[in-house]
Amino acid sequence: MNFGSDNIAGASEPIIAALAAAAREGAEGTYGSDRWTTDAVGQLRDVFETDLDVLLVPTGTAANALSLASVTPPWGGIFCHAAAHVIDEEAGAPEFFTGGAKLVGIAGRAGKLEPGGLRETLTRFPRGLPRQVQGSALSLSQATECGTAYSPSEIGALTELARGAGLAVHMDGARFANALVGLGCSAAETTWKAGIDVLSFGATKNGALACEAVIFFDRNHARYAEIQRKRSGHTLSKGRLLGAQLAAYLQDGHWLDLARSANELAERLARGLGDLPGFHLPFPRQANEVFAIMTRSVAQALHDAGAHFYEWDASSLGPGEIGPDQLLARLVCSYATTAAEVERFLAETRRVARAVASSPQ
Amino acid sequence: MNFGSDNIAGASEPIIAALAAAAREGAEGTYGSDRWTTDAVGQLRDVFETDLDVLLVPTGTAANALSLASVTPPWGGIFCHAAAHVIDEEAGAPEFFTGGAKLVGIAGRAGKLEPGGLRETLTRFPRGLPRQVQGSALSLSQATECGTAYSPSEIGALTELARGAGLAVHMDGARFANALVGLGCSAAETTWKAGIDVLSFGATKNGALACEAVIFFDRNHARYAEIQRKRSGHTLSKGRLLGAQLAAYLQDGHWLDLARSANELAERLARGLGDLPGFHLPFPRQANEVFAIMTRSVAQALHDAGAHFYEWDASSLGPGEIGPDQLLARLVCSYATTAAEVERFLAETRRVARAVASSPQ
Amino acid sequence: MNFGSDNIAGASEPIIAALAAAAREGAEGTYGSDRWTTDAVGQLRDVFETDLDVLLVPTGTAANALSLASVTPPWGGIFCHAAAHVIDEEAGAPEFFTGGAKLVGIAGRAGKLEPGGLRETLTRFPRGLPRQVQGSALSLSQATECGTAYSPSEIGALTELARGAGLAVHMDGARFANALVGLGCSAAETTWKAGIDVLSFGATKNGALACEAVIFFDRNHARYAEIQRKRSGHTLSKGRLLGAQLAAYLQDGHWLDLARSANELAERLARGLGDLPGFHLPFPRQANEVFAIMTRSVAQALHDAGAHFYEWDASSLGPGEIGPDQLLARLVCSYATTAAEVERFLAETRRVARAVASSPQ
Amino acid sequence: MNFGSDNIAGASEPIIAALAAAAREGAEGTYGSDRWTTDAVGQLRDVFETDLDVLLVPTGTAANALSLASVTPPWGGIFCHAAAHVIDEEAGAPEFFTGGAKLVGIAGRAGKLEPGGLRETLTRFPRGLPRQVQGSALSLSQATECGTAYSPSEIGALTELARGAGLAVHMDGARFANALVGLGCSAAETTWKAGIDVLSFGATKNGALACEAVIFFDRNHARYAEIQRKRSGHTLSKGRLLGAQLAAYLQDGHWLDLARSANELAERLARGLGDLPGFHLPFPRQANEVFAIMTRSVAQALHDAGAHFYEWDASSLGPGEIGPDQLLARLVCSYATTAAEVERFLAETRRVARAVASSPQ
Repeated sequence: MNFGSDNIAGASEPIIAALAAAAREGAEGTYGSDRWTTDAVGQLRDVFETDLDVLLVPTGTAANALSLASVTPPWGGIFCHAAAHVIDEEAGAPEFFTGGAKLVGIAGRAGKLEPGGLRETLTRFPRGLPRQVQGSALSLSQATECGTAYSPSEIGALTELARGAGLAVHMDGARFANALVGLGCSAAETTWKAGIDVLSFGATKNGALACEAVIFFDRNHARYAEIQRKRSGHTLSKGRLLGAQLAAYLQDGHWLDLARSANELAERLARGLGDLPGFHLPFPRQANEVFAIMTRSVAQALHDAGAHFYEWDASSLGPGEIGPDQLLARLVCSYATTAAEVERFLAETRRVARAVASSPQ
Repeated sequence: MNFGSDNIAGASEPIIAALAAAAREGAEGTYGSDRWTTDAVGQLRDVFETDLDVLLVPTGTAANALSLASVTPPWGGIFCHAAAHVIDEEAGAPEFFTGGAKLVGIAGRAGKLEPGGLRETLTRFPRGLPRQVQGSALSLSQATECGTAYSPSEIGALTELARGAGLAVHMDGARFANALVGLGCSAAETTWKAGIDVLSFGATKNGALACEAVIFFDRNHARYAEIQRKRSGHTLSKGRLLGAQLAAYLQDGHWLDLARSANELAERLARGLGDLPGFHLPFPRQANEVFAIMTRSVAQALHDAGAHFYEWDASSLGPGEIGPDQLLARLVCSYATTAAEVERFLAETRRVARAVASSPQ
Repeated sequence: MNFGSDNIAGASEPIIAALAAAAREGAEGTYGSDRWTTDAVGQLRDVFETDLDVLLVPTGTAANALSLASVTPPWGGIFCHAAAHVIDEEAGAPEFFTGGAKLVGIAGRAGKLEPGGLRETLTRFPRGLPRQVQGSALSLSQATECGTAYSPSEIGALTELARGAGLAVHMDGARFANALVGLGCSAAETTWKAGIDVLSFGATKNGALACEAVIFFDRNHARYAEIQRKRSGHTLSKGRLLGAQLAAYLQDGHWLDLARSANELAERLARGLGDLPGFHLPFPRQANEVFAIMTRSVAQALHDAGAHFYEWDASSLGPGEIGPDQLLARLVCSYATTAAEVERFLAETRRVARAVASSPQ
Repeated sequence: MNFGSDNIAGASEPIIAALAAAAREGAEGTYGSDRWTTDAVGQLRDVFETDLDVLLVPTGTAANALSLASVTPPWGGIFCHAAAHVIDEEAGAPEFFTGGAKLVGIAGRAGKLEPGGLRETLTRFPRGLPRQVQGSALSLSQATECGTAYSPSEIGALTELARGAGLAVHMDGARFANALVGLGCSAAETTWKAGIDVLSFGATKNGALACEAVIFFDRNHARYAEIQRKRSGHTLSKGRLLGAQLAAYLQDGHWLDLARSANELAERLARGLGDLPGFHLPFPRQANEVFAIMTRSVAQALHDAGAHFYEWDASSLGPGEIGPDQLLARLVCSYATTAAEVERFLAETRRVARAVASSPQ
């Protein structure tokens, strides 16, 4: 019953097999000029139905920071949701890779930026004013840090504003597959067709061991990306490690199958918790994460029963939405989560809820 | 007959097996708090016969740049051999990670720094002069870029000078195992016992897919290394990828067996070439690389016969050591190189040498 | 009637005279080793009643950025008021000088941080968590961006919290003299005695042409400041330019006389405006700036009458404190402002207010 | 008899007068939008006979670092003479301002780069190789660090090579006026007409107190220069300080008069020393610096007699050009040096030379 994160798992069998097979092969091109990487890039072109440039890297932090550095000078401003992973959870990696750009957080319900909030920030940072950083990029998380997903038209409304202000648009797709399955639209519709220039395409959280792709839909931004990757130590000499994982991940829709499984179990979890008295789910479940408000005593009882999940920062909730004896819990299902685990957790939760309800106040 | 580099190979069987097994395991600690990483660190303490701090990263560039950044401020000076990998082959990664430190190259025969050259440079950069960078680190490559190795006493002479000038000492051990086997001394003798503070301990070139360890013998230098790793995107969420490789690499001396095989074949190659007329080996063979001066026509004939190796920068040679129609070739044996490959290459070389010798001038 | 800023003026006569005299002198030490700089540093030690290290620089941005860089690593976090000059008005200079640290804004009434707000932020950035920047500095503005001043005990409460969390404390004293005169306490009481480690001591806005001093009360922080100054291009070869200005500024309390004049005229302005119907002064006048809420039509009429002042960001006001047809105006008096100017402006304002009041709605 | 440097002097009378007058003026535009700066920029356009963009800064280090940062990305390579001021004398300022670019020193006789040396370096750093920094700029010093000057055609030969390799070309003109007077050509001929894109135009060493202009002949490079200046703390709020100095410096050829005086005295010094036995002048005197090889005992005797000058790094000399008991001395004349000083020094030197010659060996 471990719902702590989707990176506690290992890797899916097809990915393990591909990795082992590639590692057994003889002499092959280095630094990304291997045939597995070539295969993976070709598949990405098919998946996104367009030509594109790709750089594989081992971590999501590297993918985000390289993406942002490809569109942001040291004096740039990166606008993102106030709870975005890039702003507070990556130890300042975007600041490091860009040479000191500023990340500006914008509030928004359920982890999502809204046009009004973006517009205000654009006004606060007028272009060409030399005493301020120069707005350079908008960064959107898909799925968001609240487990929600932007629809293509929501993305389009934000990217239109961004483009009008001269910003490039980055998408942090650490959980891109889960968002895509949740939305039921095509990969192209939620990215370049909606105005995304650069995408961090995650595989690690969804069945790979360590593989993310920086995808440049606007290939001008890729111009210095390769040397920025090398300079940051992310160009693997045995590039097959990344290429083999990604090729297997994409092969025959394996990535979507993995995400579908995680999302379905998250939905089962959400329904089970939503039906219980004393639980409140503040955000719609649109990917593989479930957020639930519960009392601290219930949370403690669940931990005691062996369930693992994290208390989450409640600042994304509205005023009064959470009581002083309550917490916001995040529960994540991965490709490796099983229906049995979910059912056991729900049974445990029902038991705990009953026990707490019947205990003398 | 591919002697291009030791990173064209895949991974050794025990490492593949360990990786696959770890990837199949269930929920495990993230960001390096997994049991494989713990195992690997424990083995490193045994190998080096001392307590130490360790950070695993996927590339040698990351290991070197993090090592140097842990001991060098933005206004620091890093002194190294003029042909060191860190100075010209890493796209400015040390400059990036340190925030703009200066790498100062020092000439030296056969890829090795000598006390005289270091002393001159220390004089050129006196401490406390605010118009110059402040000497902060000495970086030594073991094995060197010319395939030679520093003896413990040679290292000791350099580190003593460095320490007297207030410098920390880094060792770039991308081919550490090969150097160690070549020297026949202990891992401790060639590192901390000889005055090394931080070591980039390479596994990738010697049988792993992507794994290097930054080893801090002086644990004070490790103080901010973890956040520097995270900030540079090198903290893998599924840390087992690195831990499992390194644990298997170290297990039962596997790493030394791999290096021994590569070195022995390099020795066979060196002897075979050294016996042939028209070939000159300018540096002693002390690890898994062989450098040979040959005519350009012989090199071309060998390439035509399917042999793969690189022409190398001849600036490490003395004046007059190489003729205008000659080149310096680098031939590398890896753990995966076979005796048959070496023999076939030597036979081919003898054939080519004869043909060239008998051809009308 | 120009109340736009205190940097629209030139320099005071004693400072001009000192500058000219120093420029006429013959050969003198360079890079700050001149006798005027020595004199100025000696006077600062007297003013602050303690030993201290000093670096002179030509701008406030340089003083703030060097101060912060002396106590903040690239992975550091700098906590300051959400409206602080360092966070949005210096084009990312602190990010540049620190190598990419993060400035975290904290809300607070009238430009002042309060212990509660600081405590929350300290909780949000726990020490030692490698996925977040590491809190390194607290920066306070004295006077604040709302023209208010922290009392020694207010500073002490904040620095105690900061010190408990391992932060160094910086004071941005671009208008230090005006704050000091407003508070009526000693320079020592509002700085090192209250827990300040590094002070940007401004002279430019108060009668110099271009001179600020970075003052290190904790001299450990000065260790690499000289090379950071040189490296950022702020070490003047003819250091007498800065030294002569500062020595004259401090001589016989000249700096306090200049500030007293500016503050007294600001007080006259504040009283005059406060007495008028339709004007509201949201913050107490404690230095040389007056903030006034007025209708947009009154402001326009004043501009038409030749008065110069800026509309200010109203986000420091409480909800409902300003109406949709109102604006927040900032009016600054400098050492060069005259009583006649203030009186003329007040007369104009009374005229305009009457005209607006009697005009048909 | 102080020939230590040209920055030991104060400022010329017209510059002092202009500075004082400007400081006495009332309210004026800030941050460079003042009328003195406008005047100075207009005069620069006349001097250089072309349109151009200009940024004034207080130091030569700032001018060089901003110039280089305007044409160099963090992964760039800056090629310059091995003894250039930018490479070792500015504490890493170019590395800091560019975000970690690499300065690559190239040897050359008498402080001057030659096409052969540049060509070799361009070959060493081929474009588009991601494991190396990408050549971005050539930096030439005019006058050089050996007191020599490049002729327009020498500059043209180097800039043609640079342009062919995609490099921008910067000129460090800390002693531009002295070089220009020495060459006897126009300002345009030695800069943009010869292929220079960005010039650090120095005034400080030649009669100003602190003023240098970054001049962009290729105005595309000026695009982000203003925010880079602000971000590095070099945008003076009371911009009149810089504008007034530069306007007076340029007025009616004052700058050329000052340089002419310094150069003539340097010539008198050079002739006087060149005629003496035991003295050797290794470089032609083309600006305001004289380099002389003399015995250490003579140098000591001169110091004892009250003369001040520096021993200079002899690595720019050829092998055998200097004996073990000799040193290379640098003697600098400034605008403020007098004929009497030079004559007194020459008399002293003759006396010392005679005394040494007649003393028993």
